[in-house]
Amino acid sequence: MSLIDELIDSLRCLPGVGPKSAQRMAYHLLERDRDGGRRIAHAISEAVERVGRCQSCRTLSEEDICPQCSDRRRDDSLICIVESPMDVLALEQSASYRGRYFVLMGHLSPLDGIGPDELGLDILDRRLASGDVREVVLATNTTVEGEATAHFISEMARAKGIRSTRIAHGVPLGGELEYVDSGTLGHAMTGRQEY
Amino acid sequence: MSLIDELIDSLRCLPGVGPKSAQRMAYHLLERDRDGGRRIAHAISEAVERVGRCQSCRTLSEEDICPQCSDRRRDDSLICIVESPMDVLALEQSASYRGRYFVLMGHLSPLDGIGPDELGLDILDRRLASGDVREVVLATNTTVEGEATAHFISEMARAKGIRSTRIAHGVPLGGELEYVDSGTLGHAMTGRQEY
Repeated sequence: MSLIDELIDSLRCLPGVGPKSAQRMAYHLLERDRDGGRRIAHAISEAVERVGRCQSCRTLSEEDICPQCSDRRRDDSLICIVESPMDVLALEQSASYRGRYFVLMGHLSPLDGIGPDELGLDILDRRLASGDVREVVLATNTTVEGEATAHFISEMARAKGIRSTRIAHGVPLGGELEYVDSGTLGHAMTGRQEY
Repeated sequence: MSLIDELIDSLRCLPGVGPKSAQRMAYHLLERDRDGGRRIAHAISEAVERVGRCQSCRTLSEEDICPQCSDRRRDDSLICIVESPMDVLALEQSASYRGRYFVLMGHLSPLDGIGPDELGLDILDRRLASGDVREVVLATNTTVEGEATAHFISEMARAKGIRSTRIAHGVPLGGELEYVDSGTLGHAMTGRQEY
């Protein structure tokens, strides 16, 4: 395969990129923006090799402890459960939450072999047992699996006498958290209800 | 800037990628497809450093002479003028043409300082002077600049007593060549008219 064909083919690893977009991207980089191409290649290499998981909340992070977990001004008594690192980003951009996070990196899905251990719920359990947490904010997606996961975690919290809340249904039902605009997401965080 | 933010920011160099798509791509690579990420980084680095221009037709090529120019089974008496390497790809996919190409890498645009020299028309002139070429097929885009460029090149050909043709107007007017489907493009190539 020629270098150009290999480049086009490799770009199809990106989500939402089909054959025509991949072609267009490859030729754009080669014809008009080689420096941009070098920058992308370097950024991907660095991130892929050096970004790991936060040991405390499991989100993607280049440090052992991510900025949200190491920030001393955040409220340790609140812990917000989300499915993916992009959900943390979306909530941070809504500027409606100053507690801690816990990132599941998925949702319970027994048919795919994803149970509590795969979601790191043993780590969450230790955090809940520490005694600092007074409220678990459930911000999993409003899909069947997301709701089931939220229910499972609320039972874990209840067993330790910790209150659970669910972010309000300002979030469109059936939607994915990462696509909701900041205003709606802020509204949903502020209007959370007893679960 | 964190490695993740740098990755998101760098991906915006790609055409058609806004802030949300860039985020989604970055997290997709980090969460689900690090091997794909490594492959993209490697493919971009290799292509950006090693792909140059064909010395004969000016298209992007990792060899000094591109596959189309070095293929002995092609018809030397035909030369097709296109604006970009993607147009060569589109015409090749239409399988309607077996002559040579000449890639302008743009179109005449005096206001942007793009004249005949920037488009390599001196190189084209030498190819036309060689005596091999009997027909110049004008396949520049059907934009004002593309038409003006086609007109300019047809005058160059006429001065050497070489016939010019324009691909047929099966190509939608005002459209960009690289987006036309192969069938339409094949029809346009077959039905070319005296210019």
